[in-house]
Amino acid sequence: MSSSGFPLASGAVIGILGGGQLGRMLALAAARLGFDVAILTPDTDSPAGRVAAHTLVAPYDDDAALAELARLSDVITFEFENVPARVVAKLAALGAEVAPGPKALANGQDRVTEKSFFEAVGVPTVAFAAIDSAADIGPALEKLGAPALLKSRREGYDGKGQAWIKSADEAQAAFARIGGVPAILEAKAPFVREVSVIAARGRGGEVADYPLTENTHEDGILRRSIAPAQASGDTRAQATRIVTTLLDELDYVGVIGVEMFELADGRLLVNEFAPRVHNSGHWTLDACQVDQFEQHIRAIAGWPLGPTAPMMAVEMTNLLGAEAADPAALSDPNARLWLYGKRGSRVYDARRKMGHVNRLSPLKC
Amino acid sequence: MSSSGFPLASGAVIGILGGGQLGRMLALAAARLGFDVAILTPDTDSPAGRVAAHTLVAPYDDDAALAELARLSDVITFEFENVPARVVAKLAALGAEVAPGPKALANGQDRVTEKSFFEAVGVPTVAFAAIDSAADIGPALEKLGAPALLKSRREGYDGKGQAWIKSADEAQAAFARIGGVPAILEAKAPFVREVSVIAARGRGGEVADYPLTENTHEDGILRRSIAPAQASGDTRAQATRIVTTLLDELDYVGVIGVEMFELADGRLLVNEFAPRVHNSGHWTLDACQVDQFEQHIRAIAGWPLGPTAPMMAVEMTNLLGAEAADPAALSDPNARLWLYGKRGSRVYDARRKMGHVNRLSPLKC
Repeated sequence: MSSSGFPLASGAVIGILGGGQLGRMLALAAARLGFDVAILTPDTDSPAGRVAAHTLVAPYDDDAALAELARLSDVITFEFENVPARVVAKLAALGAEVAPGPKALANGQDRVTEKSFFEAVGVPTVAFAAIDSAADIGPALEKLGAPALLKSRREGYDGKGQAWIKSADEAQAAFARIGGVPAILEAKAPFVREVSVIAARGRGGEVADYPLTENTHEDGILRRSIAPAQASGDTRAQATRIVTTLLDELDYVGVIGVEMFELADGRLLVNEFAPRVHNSGHWTLDACQVDQFEQHIRAIAGWPLGPTAPMMAVEMTNLLGAEAADPAALSDPNARLWLYGKRGSRVYDARRKMGHVNRLSPLKC
Repeated sequence: MSSSGFPLASGAVIGILGGGQLGRMLALAAARLGFDVAILTPDTDSPAGRVAAHTLVAPYDDDAALAELARLSDVITFEFENVPARVVAKLAALGAEVAPGPKALANGQDRVTEKSFFEAVGVPTVAFAAIDSAADIGPALEKLGAPALLKSRREGYDGKGQAWIKSADEAQAAFARIGGVPAILEAKAPFVREVSVIAARGRGGEVADYPLTENTHEDGILRRSIAPAQASGDTRAQATRIVTTLLDELDYVGVIGVEMFELADGRLLVNEFAPRVHNSGHWTLDACQVDQFEQHIRAIAGWPLGPTAPMMAVEMTNLLGAEAADPAALSDPNARLWLYGKRGSRVYDARRKMGHVNRLSPLKC
C-alpha cells in the first residue's frame, strides 16, 4: 500500500477481490491507464488472474492473503457483492482503502436490508415482507397478494434461491426449496419491461450515468440487453434521480448497477442494486468512449469520470456454455466479441457465462 | 505448443517476443478474445509481462527460454522487427508457428534488402545506394543528389543511426556518426507529407487495410497521427495497391505498418515497412470496432479479419517522457488516454514513449 493519496498516480496498484470475467475486464481497463492489478481469488487458474501483475490464490477470508493484498494495493475493489463483512473489516483494519465502501456492501448483501434502505431514502421499490420461517409466508402473502416471489435474503444470483408462491399451501415446499434460510417475500411487480442503469460516482461526489438499458432474462439469467433503451424523457429523468439518490446515500465511490421494473404507467421501481460493474453494462465496452470498467477504475482511483454518451446502439447477448465455442459473431462485421477465457469442467455448463457479443447499429436520432 | 491447427480455439496461447507497449496492447487484445499470452522479454518488469499469463524473462536468443515459449504457445509473434534471424530459425526448428514469417523479417531488417525488395515487386520507393565505407558516399551522392540521408542498414529506429549529408566533404564525419556500420544513402524525397497505412493479411490471404494516416515526426520520433487522412480516391487506391502487393509478396500473416511519402503530384513512395503493429495505427484503438492489435491477433490466430472503417476521426499524439505524468487529456471528454505502465530510470527520458492520447471528433463526410 503506497498510500500516495488520490488521485492515484499511473503505475499504482488496483487490488481486486474475485477472479472472474468482471475482474478480468476491470484488469484490462486498469492496464489501459497504466495501472497494475493484484487479484485475490481462490481459483488457481482464473480469467482475471491470467491478465494481472499479481495473483494471490487463497480463500477470500485468508488473513495472510488479505494482508498481502493490502500491502500491494493502493485501492481495493471487488467484482462480486457477497464479500464477507469480516473481510471488509479486516482490510479496513489493515488501513486499506476499499471502494465501494462498507455501506454499499452492507446494504446490498441482504434483500430485506436493501429494500428497507430503498424505502428509507425514498426510492420506489416493490412491496415486501421478511420471512423467517414457513409460517410467515401465509400472512405475508395476504398482505402482498399472490403470486409473490420468495428469495433467500442473502446470496443467490442468476435466479438461484428463488421460488414463486401462488398460495399459502405452497409455503412449506417453497421455503424448503430455497434451503429454509432467512428469506424475503416480494410482491409481483406488474412490469412491462426490466431496465437497468449503470452509473458511477467519483471521489468528489460527481455522478455520471449511462443511458437506460432494457434487459431480457431467461431462467433468471440475463440473456440480452438493448441500449440505449427507448424511453421517454420523464422515464430517463426518473432513472437518473433514483441512481443519484442511491449513490449519494451510500456515499458511493465506483460503478453501480441498478435493476428496475418499468410499470405500464411509466413509473420505475427498483428491484435491486449490485455494488459493482454489471452484466447489463457490457454494451458500454464497444459503444462508449469510456466503458463501465474504465469508469470504475477512474472513480476508485480518484480520476475524473469519463463521458457516458453512446456512439452506437447495441444489442448485447450473453454467450452461455457451449455457445462461446464457435461464435458466429466473429465473422459478423457489426458484432463485437468478448470471450472470458474460462476453463475447467464447467465450460459446457449451459448456465455459465462464457462471453458476450455486442451487436452495433447506428444510433436512432 | 498444442498444435491444434488454425483457427485457434479461444483459450489458446499467443506467444509474443518483446515486453513493451506494443506487446502490452497485443496482450490486452488477445485477452478480449479469450486467449492467454506468453511474453518473452529480457526486462524483469515489463509493461507486457504485467498483463500476461506467462512471462519468461531471458535474452531473446536464450535457447531454454525459446524452447519454453515454443512449448507454451500455439502461435508466436513479435512486437519489434529486429528479431535475430537465428531466433526465428530456432523457433522454426522447434516446430513453432511464427507470424509474420521469416520472409517479412528478412526483408524488413536491412534497409538495402528492403528497398531492393520494393523495386523487385514494383513498389515505388526513393532512390538509394548501398554504402559499405565512407568512400562510397561521394559517388552515391553524385548519383542521388544532395542532400541525401545516410542510415545504418540494420537496427536504428525513432531517428537513431541517421545523418543528413549535404556534400561529399561530410562523408567521413557522417559515416563515423552512425557508427561506421554498413549503411544506405537515400535520396531526399520531395514529399508534401508523410502518411502510413496499417493493414492486415489473414491466413487465407485476405487483406484488410485501415484508412490512410497522416503523420508528423519530430526529431525522428512520431509525434502525431491524423486519421482518416484527407486524400483523393486515387491516393487511397495507390495506398491500398501498395500495401496489398507487399502483403502478398511477403506471404504475410498479421498486421503490417507501411510508411510512405506523398509527393506534390500525389504519387506515394514507400519509405519503409514494419512487420508488426505500428505506432501510427494507435488511433484505431478508439475509432475502429476492431483495432490494429485485435486485428493482428485475429490474423495470426486464423480468425476472420474485422472491419476497418473508422467510427470517428482521430488525432493521436504520443506522450513522451514526463508528458505522461499528469495528462490533461484525462479530463477532456473527447480525448482517450492510453498509458503504458513503463517504469524505471528512463521514465523521464524525453524521447521515451510513455503513452498516447486519441482526440476524437465526428467523421467529416
